[in-house]
Amino acid sequence: MSAAATSPGRLLLVPAPLDFGCDTQSPIDAVLPAATLAAAAATTHWVCENAKTTRAFLKRVGELRPLAQPLQQQHIVELPREVHKKGDHGPGFDARPLLQAALAGHDIGLLSEAGMPAIADPGSSVVRAAHDLGLTVLPLVGPCSLLLALAASGLNGQNFAFVGYLPQEAAARQQRIRELEVLALRTGQAQIFIETPYRNAALLSALLSALQPGTRLSVSSGLTLDDALTRSLPVQAWRERHGPAPEGPAVFSIGP
Amino acid sequence: MSAAATSPGRLLLVPAPLDFGCDTQSPIDAVLPAATLAAAAATTHWVCENAKTTRAFLKRVGELRPLAQPLQQQHIVELPREVHKKGDHGPGFDARPLLQAALAGHDIGLLSEAGMPAIADPGSSVVRAAHDLGLTVLPLVGPCSLLLALAASGLNGQNFAFVGYLPQEAAARQQRIRELEVLALRTGQAQIFIETPYRNAALLSALLSALQPGTRLSVSSGLTLDDALTRSLPVQAWRERHGPAPEGPAVFSIGP
Repeated sequence: MSAAATSPGRLLLVPAPLDFGCDTQSPIDAVLPAATLAAAAATTHWVCENAKTTRAFLKRVGELRPLAQPLQQQHIVELPREVHKKGDHGPGFDARPLLQAALAGHDIGLLSEAGMPAIADPGSSVVRAAHDLGLTVLPLVGPCSLLLALAASGLNGQNFAFVGYLPQEAAARQQRIRELEVLALRTGQAQIFIETPYRNAALLSALLSALQPGTRLSVSSGLTLDDALTRSLPVQAWRERHGPAPEGPAVFSIGP
Repeated sequence: MSAAATSPGRLLLVPAPLDFGCDTQSPIDAVLPAATLAAAAATTHWVCENAKTTRAFLKRVGELRPLAQPLQQQHIVELPREVHKKGDHGPGFDARPLLQAALAGHDIGLLSEAGMPAIADPGSSVVRAAHDLGLTVLPLVGPCSLLLALAASGLNGQNFAFVGYLPQEAAARQQRIRELEVLALRTGQAQIFIETPYRNAALLSALLSALQPGTRLSVSSGLTLDDALTRSLPVQAWRERHGPAPEGPAVFSIGP
């Protein structure tokens, strides 16, 4: 393997459909454009959140376009489990060894279980390692639930922040909600956050109890799926017509 | 027109390709998936940033799928120019009258010149109006330069903010850069911003002069185009290998 003799491969950021874990799945060309499908079909080396999900994704790609290598011959490397758990942003994990195949001339696809890798998902350590190695990093178009949710919220798309998960403990969560509301109302910056689905109802209750009546709250769920729903109303209106919290993955946003 | 007799239309958020203003343009199915193309082809009523761009977009859609109505018969309403200029987030502009056709049963497409409407682009006033009228708001998958740039930067995708444009005046700009760097280093939150292309070089110089050597700076340009480029390195490395600033639209990000 000689970097001098071989032109290095690229790191392709390959978005995955948002129907991960759903009972029914549509053909993936509904949400992945032709350039993304072509790049995925041509790629034979992968760094991923989950090898099983990656094979399921490639099977779906292969139903639409011939894969450059059969499934059994794809080179699939999982990010260490530790990296999933605590997220892989920050020091302490060197992803450069995962990119050896690129130095040998192969494009490497980075794939998470759903949506855009490295956004609200593992992968940023791999992207940083690629830059540190001088590799070309190419992001491909596909679904990203945060951005779809923000656009659908009607909240401020000129100034917004995604802050991940809120604390689980009730008092800490309430304090964080108030802190984010103060920031949003003072600066106009929309604040976006997510929650593990089984805690959606608790988070929604906490929001409706802690936020001011005039603050706008948006909740999106099922984005790109048949049951896609975004509800964006002032808190006062939510309180008057409080429906059930979404059961699946949801994106919450607040702002003036 | 009777809302009781007709089921109301939806507000579709239709992303546009990022090759706006480029000399060469690829077929749009490279960046727009099938569900987005199908929805755009079926839509006959539009609220948009620019009517001419909307017709050009529909012409490109029509080359791939039959339009429900010929171009000449599409109903296209521009957002008031004043709304473009100062952005349409904030009070003072009531977009509900633009959505009359939805109350009469027609889906309405919201379209900006490039990328996702209502994100770093006009449109959020229209989305809020749709929610206030009780209409379904459906965001469609397509390119969004901010998110592609963030993923490609390797910066923190679990905690990030988009803050729009920095001040133009040199001293104010330098102060704002330092403020954003302090925030990014203290909280770990990646800070994303944009600039008018002819000021890219001035902004890049200001960043390299004001930021600390260990801060990571990422600059993305040409995303989804043939000359797509993301450079993400510590400021020290940028100073040692300082290439030219991008000539077209660019996204800048900083973080630890």
